[in-house]
Amino acid sequence: MAPKVLIVGSGGVGVICAYSLTKRAKSEVTLVVRSDYQRVSTQGLNIDSVNYGTVRNWIPSQVAPSVETARTQYGPFDYIFLCTKNVPDSRVTCEDIIRPAVSENTTILLLQNGIDIEKPMHKAFPHNLILSGISLIGSTNSPNLIQHKALEQVFVGDFDKSQSHPDSQKALDEIIDIYHNEGFNLILPDADVRQQRWNKLLYNATFNIIAGLTGVDACRCQITGANSALIEPAMREIMAIAKSEGYDVPEALLDKLIHIGDGLFYRPSMLTDVHNGQLTEVETVLGNPVRIAQKNGVAVPILNTLYSMMKIKQFSIKEQRKDFVLNEEDFKGNSDGYEAIFEEKYASHH
Amino acid sequence: MAPKVLIVGSGGVGVICAYSLTKRAKSEVTLVVRSDYQRVSTQGLNIDSVNYGTVRNWIPSQVAPSVETARTQYGPFDYIFLCTKNVPDSRVTCEDIIRPAVSENTTILLLQNGIDIEKPMHKAFPHNLILSGISLIGSTNSPNLIQHKALEQVFVGDFDKSQSHPDSQKALDEIIDIYHNEGFNLILPDADVRQQRWNKLLYNATFNIIAGLTGVDACRCQITGANSALIEPAMREIMAIAKSEGYDVPEALLDKLIHIGDGLFYRPSMLTDVHNGQLTEVETVLGNPVRIAQKNGVAVPILNTLYSMMKIKQFSIKEQRKDFVLNEEDFKGNSDGYEAIFEEKYASHH
Repeated sequence: MAPKVLIVGSGGVGVICAYSLTKRAKSEVTLVVRSDYQRVSTQGLNIDSVNYGTVRNWIPSQVAPSVETARTQYGPFDYIFLCTKNVPDSRVTCEDIIRPAVSENTTILLLQNGIDIEKPMHKAFPHNLILSGISLIGSTNSPNLIQHKALEQVFVGDFDKSQSHPDSQKALDEIIDIYHNEGFNLILPDADVRQQRWNKLLYNATFNIIAGLTGVDACRCQITGANSALIEPAMREIMAIAKSEGYDVPEALLDKLIHIGDGLFYRPSMLTDVHNGQLTEVETVLGNPVRIAQKNGVAVPILNTLYSMMKIKQFSIKEQRKDFVLNEEDFKGNSDGYEAIFEEKYASHH
Repeated sequence: MAPKVLIVGSGGVGVICAYSLTKRAKSEVTLVVRSDYQRVSTQGLNIDSVNYGTVRNWIPSQVAPSVETARTQYGPFDYIFLCTKNVPDSRVTCEDIIRPAVSENTTILLLQNGIDIEKPMHKAFPHNLILSGISLIGSTNSPNLIQHKALEQVFVGDFDKSQSHPDSQKALDEIIDIYHNEGFNLILPDADVRQQRWNKLLYNATFNIIAGLTGVDACRCQITGANSALIEPAMREIMAIAKSEGYDVPEALLDKLIHIGDGLFYRPSMLTDVHNGQLTEVETVLGNPVRIAQKNGVAVPILNTLYSMMKIKQFSIKEQRKDFVLNEEDFKGNSDGYEAIFEEKYASHH
């Protein structure tokens, strides 16, 4: 029987993933579309893909408006591919999102950004096989159109090379079998995905954060001299943290990533998130590296500064979204105590 | 004959200054109101002042729509009090703004923020007496209302204690005589205004910049833990730069300034500037200290980071204001060269 795959997250990564699996036709694919279910289930998805071409009104064979409904109608699932943003400081964590569909034999594959995203997932589902994937894909979700501009390359492996799960090789083989479309994408086993995660962070913890904070695209940042003044030194701090964890990010990658968007006037996704008042992945992309630096005694003054600034920005996005309503009367004394007051009166309720 | 004073800048500082001089009635005051002349010259100014009370429809006896007109109608001037923002990277510098009214015997008093603002002024007018003033005043310019919330305290002195001008004592005495209103304001001679400038920078180069970049008021920043994570370490970098120039900023001032806005949910002026799409004083408040640090070999990674980010922000404000129209075709090669391309093709024209 074909394995059952639930894809959670219908943005640029999730939709192309769903399309690839469907094209391969060796699994039973269910796509969760939470925010736009009515339209997608009736009119379908539109895709402009560098590999799959122009796809119009594609309705995945199984679409569900929620993870709960997906489980009831199409579960239990052999795999959950998690393709949402990962925002551990939001009201609903990724673990909460997929929980209704996780059964005893479900393998969970995290196709998300950031470092250490596997840890809370492992803690929430200690008996499930959890795999980690890095999707390198230039795919964005414009309203009613997925724009897919670069080959879908996915590196998949155990979430921690030191904790290889007895079933992981079998699952990896099967994932590659059902996901890889020869000539259309590359699904590659990776014995150490954590290295890939550090590599990718070089870009995401710098360009993404800087663009998100300033509201300015990458090329414009570079016109102000940011390459040498800010981006390279910040990337070197990420490299130093990776090094303290035993990972050597290649020196050549630094130069490559500084120049990867030259001339493109590219707007990193965090810029779009902030612009749209959406929560950002600051905690997985920057908060976790900064905490690792602190644990390992690596000095990262630039990243600390960016992180502090981005925490302020995230706070204001949460307030805009009415995640909390601030009562100024709660904050009248010595401001050194404000963080604790907020934690007690506002954050602890959820 | 009463000395003639031209006040340039009709914001929170300039209007209270003009009102103080007028109340003292020992000088002939001309106020330049560039952006709102029609309204101010017919309906007058409204002031809610902690010291002068509620003032409605106050029309200064001499108002001019431009520095040129002021000179023609009411000049030549014995004094120019410069109360505008100081934005040396804008199309029109402060030196350009006042030039039409500077005559041989004009003394120029800079009542502006930042460090080293006296240097370009001295270079532009090497034969004029230039004095430096720090105005400590909680005064903001809401539409049609100046809100003045703290005692006007002004420290005035030579712009450089090592280069005391032969006429400076006479000018200082006269300024205090025509400006000081017993019980209403404090106009104080200061043999070393540069110390005051460093002290004030502790706040302006940190809170102002952080609020400007994030769009978030001071108390909200503090709720996210910024006091210890960002603001105090940034203030200590300013203290280190001041120290490298021979100025000891008192340790107690750091604690005082961190907590000066506790409970007030105060929006620093740079936040308002960014919000309104106005150019900020980033170069005088942060750029100049960072350049001094570089010259003196002081490591300031936090301020460097904030400065790089704020330069990006200022760039985008200039673009919004149509100070330039970017042609993306000019920026297609290696991004390390973008800054030079911009300098050559865009910035050198003015």
